[in-house]
Amino acid sequence: MLLVKKFGGTSVADKERIFNVARRCMKDYQAGHKVVMVLSAMGKQTDVLLDMAKDINDSPPKRELDMLLSTGEQVSVALMSMAFASLGIPSVSLNAFQVAMHTTRVYGSARLKRIDTERIHHELDNHKIVIVTGFQGINKYDDVTTLGRGGSDTTAVALAAALHADQCEIFTDVEGVYTADPRIVPKARKLKEITYGEMLDLATLGAGVLHNRSVELAKKYNIPLIVRSSLNESEGTIIKEVTKVEGMLISGVAADRNTTRISVIGLEDRPGVAFKLFDMIAKANVNVDMILQSIGRDGTKDISFTIPEDDTKDCVELIEKKMENLRAHKIDVNEGVAKVSIVGAGMMSAPGVAAKMFECLYNADININMISTSEIRVTVLIREKDTERAVNAIHDAFGLED
Amino acid sequence: MLLVKKFGGTSVADKERIFNVARRCMKDYQAGHKVVMVLSAMGKQTDVLLDMAKDINDSPPKRELDMLLSTGEQVSVALMSMAFASLGIPSVSLNAFQVAMHTTRVYGSARLKRIDTERIHHELDNHKIVIVTGFQGINKYDDVTTLGRGGSDTTAVALAAALHADQCEIFTDVEGVYTADPRIVPKARKLKEITYGEMLDLATLGAGVLHNRSVELAKKYNIPLIVRSSLNESEGTIIKEVTKVEGMLISGVAADRNTTRISVIGLEDRPGVAFKLFDMIAKANVNVDMILQSIGRDGTKDISFTIPEDDTKDCVELIEKKMENLRAHKIDVNEGVAKVSIVGAGMMSAPGVAAKMFECLYNADININMISTSEIRVTVLIREKDTERAVNAIHDAFGLED
Repeated sequence: MLLVKKFGGTSVADKERIFNVARRCMKDYQAGHKVVMVLSAMGKQTDVLLDMAKDINDSPPKRELDMLLSTGEQVSVALMSMAFASLGIPSVSLNAFQVAMHTTRVYGSARLKRIDTERIHHELDNHKIVIVTGFQGINKYDDVTTLGRGGSDTTAVALAAALHADQCEIFTDVEGVYTADPRIVPKARKLKEITYGEMLDLATLGAGVLHNRSVELAKKYNIPLIVRSSLNESEGTIIKEVTKVEGMLISGVAADRNTTRISVIGLEDRPGVAFKLFDMIAKANVNVDMILQSIGRDGTKDISFTIPEDDTKDCVELIEKKMENLRAHKIDVNEGVAKVSIVGAGMMSAPGVAAKMFECLYNADININMISTSEIRVTVLIREKDTERAVNAIHDAFGLED
Repeated sequence: MLLVKKFGGTSVADKERIFNVARRCMKDYQAGHKVVMVLSAMGKQTDVLLDMAKDINDSPPKRELDMLLSTGEQVSVALMSMAFASLGIPSVSLNAFQVAMHTTRVYGSARLKRIDTERIHHELDNHKIVIVTGFQGINKYDDVTTLGRGGSDTTAVALAAALHADQCEIFTDVEGVYTADPRIVPKARKLKEITYGEMLDLATLGAGVLHNRSVELAKKYNIPLIVRSSLNESEGTIIKEVTKVEGMLISGVAADRNTTRISVIGLEDRPGVAFKLFDMIAKANVNVDMILQSIGRDGTKDISFTIPEDDTKDCVELIEKKMENLRAHKIDVNEGVAKVSIVGAGMMSAPGVAAKMFECLYNADININMISTSEIRVTVLIREKDTERAVNAIHDAFGLED
């Protein structure tokens, strides 16, 4: 079998953990499997590099930031290969140039376009374990790009797809996908299986286990994904197209505190205003999530929407620059909000799921700010300080502890 | 003018120094010059990375070590470009892949073969300052190589040659080339000019100011080299083909403590033995410097030679493995030795220079272990602990303080 195995920063944070990971992969190699590893930067190294950059320049050019950050994974893969050499196992480290990991142009949040597999196959044929830098790529100018936070997951899945791997394992510091974040909900239960769609909604909504683009890719190419702990041998959670019906209405509840609500007040109430606003934001590569438009009054209307907290500064500056052009009166920014979502393929065939969620929040005296829904998901925006109570109340109401 | 400027690790060791360097180069840029910078890794970063490697693996695979070490310069160049952005000056950082800095295959001590200048010229034409990673290259397998300690000097001179630069400045933590190391000889005097040949001998012999391969390259392509301080605006030393005759017999005295003497005892006294020994050592990429062969006795002979201290372990292991094949009795290793040399184009036309050096060492009661000479250089091997006394005695005897 050809196995792709991705290890995050905490899994390679120090010498001991690097050797743990190496020994674990060595077993698969010695059992005759072909092993391709994808590594993140060690521990908090990406944050360390980011701090170095900010110390030099408050808003460093994104091209140069990617050039800087990409060194983190290169250090990890080189050290891992040295660990294999100590264990007498042949291996080779490869960076984005060496693999030829082609991405789109955008620095900081590039998307993988094409992966050349020639070099990797060549090294695998020479019986080497191949260790690839996650998170990074090169664009058509031969410049280094990064895929955004958590991008190493995407690298792993894309490699699995390009190499026609039999399986892609994502090793992390949790034991799998839970019905809720165990740090918030003590009764949270580990799921054995979950569909791509459910995982996608959980990932997008901040479950924090997997990068959402990696799940999209896995779904697109039908790559079985396994999320499991790098610290023990427990089974983890399998993400695949169809799962056994567990008779569950919903699979999990997720909270995302890293969100900001922006309201643009007093927009002229005429066609094309919303388009102008969101087109501008999209071109700046900011992902808008929930959108709420008020009913027009006095010839004006208000539009509220949520964006990732990290993009707040960029987005606000952008809108402020165009206030006149948008004919807006003022902009209101609220960082003290959180998104709480329930996700489950089961809700497609069961009416009243959203109502049950709203009822349970009403009973807990938690005010709902905005609502958005999809076929398998209901999301509400609430005050950040209510997050923990909300998630526990929902977890209880839907009986997720089993 | 097209200027190549190289800054060593101490010149970019922290935020303040990075900005100092940026502001200095900004002046040349604003005066209308095209500026290409070559940077080393920040401060002691290369040593930090080396320690990380050794912690994982006592003798890490050299390919992976180069992969690891090359991240150091990439961090420097990205941060420098961010500093220029703060100052409002357009710039771009380029690593060995992006420039296409082709080298020989050998990891850890590769030699530059060919530099593609297309990307650099393109960026210069777009009025950007170009900041290139020193010390590193890529070989024909697309693997990262490094040029050995001090290799950034070589990168700078090679770039200057490839770009037909008007001048190559090497910025360092000393003010230029001195008649002797000022830390050893308080009376040492800064030289205004020195020939490539003299500098080459000084560099090879451990003057520590310039990497010897960089001087060889500058000589080959006739690139005027300027060695100057990154901390102040003092004039520095110009290295070029012909210098004004300063009426000096010798230009300087250099000491190299990082040297090991190896003696192979009881070699069979037949043709080809020396060839076998040194061919074997050369193939391991170890530079042999002084060689002394004893007169044969009882059908055997002894060969002594010096090598860089760092190569001691590799070289001794190599010889020990081939003891039988070489029919040698034993090997004797002495790390407590130092090379002391006098260098000067003037000595070609002045007899008695070597004799004067030996006399002065005799007067200082310092024993000479081995001797080697070239047209413009006399080198002696002495006990390491006599180094300081020897250098000062010679500096005095030849009146180098002026």
